[in-house]
Amino acid sequence: MSHTSGTIGNQSSLPVVIIIGGGFGGLSAARALANVAVRIILVDKSNHHLFQPLLYQVATSGLAEADIAEPIRSILRNQRNVEIFLDEVTRINTVEKLVVTSDLTLHYDYLILACGARHSYFGKDEWEQHAPGLKTLGDAVNIRNRILMAFEVAEKASAPEERKRAMTFVVVGGGPTGVETAGAIAELAYCTLKRDFRHINPAEARIILIEATSHILPTFDLVLSRKALEQLKKLRVDVRLNAKVTRITEDYVEVSGITIPTRTVIWAAGNMASPLGSQLGVEVDRQGRVMVNADMSIPGHPEVFVIGDMAFAKRANGTPVPGVSPAAVQAGRHVARNILRLLNGISTKHFEYVDKGSMATIGRHAAIADLHLIKFSGYFAWITWAFIHLYFLIGFRKRSRVFLSWVFSYLTYTTTSRIILPQTQQDDLLRGRSVSKNT
Amino acid sequence: MSHTSGTIGNQSSLPVVIIIGGGFGGLSAARALANVAVRIILVDKSNHHLFQPLLYQVATSGLAEADIAEPIRSILRNQRNVEIFLDEVTRINTVEKLVVTSDLTLHYDYLILACGARHSYFGKDEWEQHAPGLKTLGDAVNIRNRILMAFEVAEKASAPEERKRAMTFVVVGGGPTGVETAGAIAELAYCTLKRDFRHINPAEARIILIEATSHILPTFDLVLSRKALEQLKKLRVDVRLNAKVTRITEDYVEVSGITIPTRTVIWAAGNMASPLGSQLGVEVDRQGRVMVNADMSIPGHPEVFVIGDMAFAKRANGTPVPGVSPAAVQAGRHVARNILRLLNGISTKHFEYVDKGSMATIGRHAAIADLHLIKFSGYFAWITWAFIHLYFLIGFRKRSRVFLSWVFSYLTYTTTSRIILPQTQQDDLLRGRSVSKNT
Repeated sequence: MSHTSGTIGNQSSLPVVIIIGGGFGGLSAARALANVAVRIILVDKSNHHLFQPLLYQVATSGLAEADIAEPIRSILRNQRNVEIFLDEVTRINTVEKLVVTSDLTLHYDYLILACGARHSYFGKDEWEQHAPGLKTLGDAVNIRNRILMAFEVAEKASAPEERKRAMTFVVVGGGPTGVETAGAIAELAYCTLKRDFRHINPAEARIILIEATSHILPTFDLVLSRKALEQLKKLRVDVRLNAKVTRITEDYVEVSGITIPTRTVIWAAGNMASPLGSQLGVEVDRQGRVMVNADMSIPGHPEVFVIGDMAFAKRANGTPVPGVSPAAVQAGRHVARNILRLLNGISTKHFEYVDKGSMATIGRHAAIADLHLIKFSGYFAWITWAFIHLYFLIGFRKRSRVFLSWVFSYLTYTTTSRIILPQTQQDDLLRGRSVSKNT
Repeated sequence: MSHTSGTIGNQSSLPVVIIIGGGFGGLSAARALANVAVRIILVDKSNHHLFQPLLYQVATSGLAEADIAEPIRSILRNQRNVEIFLDEVTRINTVEKLVVTSDLTLHYDYLILACGARHSYFGKDEWEQHAPGLKTLGDAVNIRNRILMAFEVAEKASAPEERKRAMTFVVVGGGPTGVETAGAIAELAYCTLKRDFRHINPAEARIILIEATSHILPTFDLVLSRKALEQLKKLRVDVRLNAKVTRITEDYVEVSGITIPTRTVIWAAGNMASPLGSQLGVEVDRQGRVMVNADMSIPGHPEVFVIGDMAFAKRANGTPVPGVSPAAVQAGRHVARNILRLLNGISTKHFEYVDKGSMATIGRHAAIADLHLIKFSGYFAWITWAFIHLYFLIGFRKRSRVFLSWVFSYLTYTTTSRIILPQTQQDDLLRGRSVSKNT
């Protein structure tokens, strides 16, 4: 039997809903079940929910780690039907309805998988060590360390070619993450660091954005994509379209046959869904996403749901549900309601994603916004972007902190968190060692 | 010749002052030389100055990393006679007046060593892996990870003895760092985390403070030390006086023959000065501190000064200058003036430390303060402590951030930064790889 059923006896008759992942999808599902007589067990590898849309700001020193992360326990503190375990899921058994983690074996009646995606290197996994991606807080700190360290190396370099290499930053991938990161590095170099060095001129830094297709932000309207390109060029980002990365080493990036010497490459080009999806025994697509039914359950298992970046779902118009946070939030809420329907013996409903629009920001003054009825770009789009993102940041306290940080950064052209943080601990220290396991 | 003299030719005729360390002492020396015609080279292993008196707050989730750290470059941005290199000093040659780092060889006319201290385990270096100390931002993140992880392990534990072990926190050392850390862990467990768990009651956590002598805060007046003990006991910290740690393993701490099962031990018991002091060829004391002359220079080298926690200096009354930040700040300013005197061909002056008093805080409502003319404790001492610390936090911006964090934490009993941050990168990525070396 499940590990925890022994410890909270009086609740053990309730149906158990296990949610794997405390991101936008998992949290939204948990919250939507707040007043339902179920026992919710949320399992996540990390102790915090991450406001991922602003992660690039941490990677480029604009915000501190704590500004965009909140403990999942804090968020769900007052929802008494949720238990949270910080643990890594190692195995899912849909026949026996078991979730096995490093320390626990848990039985479920309903399962929601919301584990998101990692970056993918199209089979070139050896690129990862030289070109880290940006998905977790640890990734962001890693990239921040590399960017800041590059300027420090340049300041010490005696050979001009060495200095030039250190001051060349390559961002691979012209989607929102790549565009936002490239813009933020440009502002860091050209504005924030302007007066900080004596032997180098940060204005000589080169920021190169590589995009394989013919335009950046390909999911946006073409007019907005062109506006974004203009805005990036104003920030002196060197955008290379129709360019294919063929090699990444410690010393350079090879792009369509041209070698660019650099020590700082950031990968924002590809995603691969959590490998847990492939344990369900159902079809997954090339990006590892689970092909879900219209109600977000998986074929053959009406009690198992997959949502967010892990799922491949089709909208009524035939296009896929995009891998964005509003889609994960909506799907989380939807599958919670479907579970309630199943509990009440009625049939589930199809998920229909409501697209309220999308935005991307380019530096501190510009953005593009597509709100369907209205498409706009420039300074007003940036202000809109800033307010929408502040509004959705979880918790009033974080909002105030971030708002204060932004106002200060805006007025003073400084950044909040330009810290090179050394390696802090061994991974195994973080694992719950020697906890008794029982099944 | 020095690496950098080639790159800024027109300044190369100025006398070179090398400062090793960007802590309180090194920064204060650099600032005091702002209007002097010298070329200052400041070398530090990390890119940020740390407000160390509040480091325990980061270790216990009360403040975020960025709240107490500011890039040294930002602080000295407008002081044009300073160059900063992020590098590790590997060798000092006082005969040839050279400082050798991982990447550079630098010549000096005057040298100021202000590299501080690390914790020391009295020859039991194998204890470090189980009982980390608290000196750097990395240390604080490491300890925060361990404390937060202990509660997560307890929540998953099925055996009562395992749960008890996970919820036992041992702080070794009853000086200010130990007292402040123990008090902060108590408040984290008993207040902040109160409603966050389902299988454990954080109120059952045990916080044990081990002190080898007969009273805590031994540098304070005995009356205040007793007040602090009362205040700690009110916070339910189990203080064990005259207790000696004889063994630390992954599973327990042995204190005066008694075994305390625990997975979280924090070391606040001993200091060892930076090993660079022993490269100077002059006498050092048992803690590795350099025995300096009355003007803070070293015997035989009037151009080499050692300040802060690295130095052993005697006051006029025969007592040693304490290892506290005001002493480092004053000594930094003093040796800067002594260098100016030497430049003007006049003799140096003796350093005299002006002790303005000391304070220690115990939790969120209590502190002790010894301002000589007046000694007080309790809530008013805590308010005084908070304002003095805010006042000295570098930069208006940090002050506002920290103030806001504190007000929110105070009103809501939550914490700012309860984040378990995974290992972020390899140490070698942080080193400036393959920068040309020349001498």
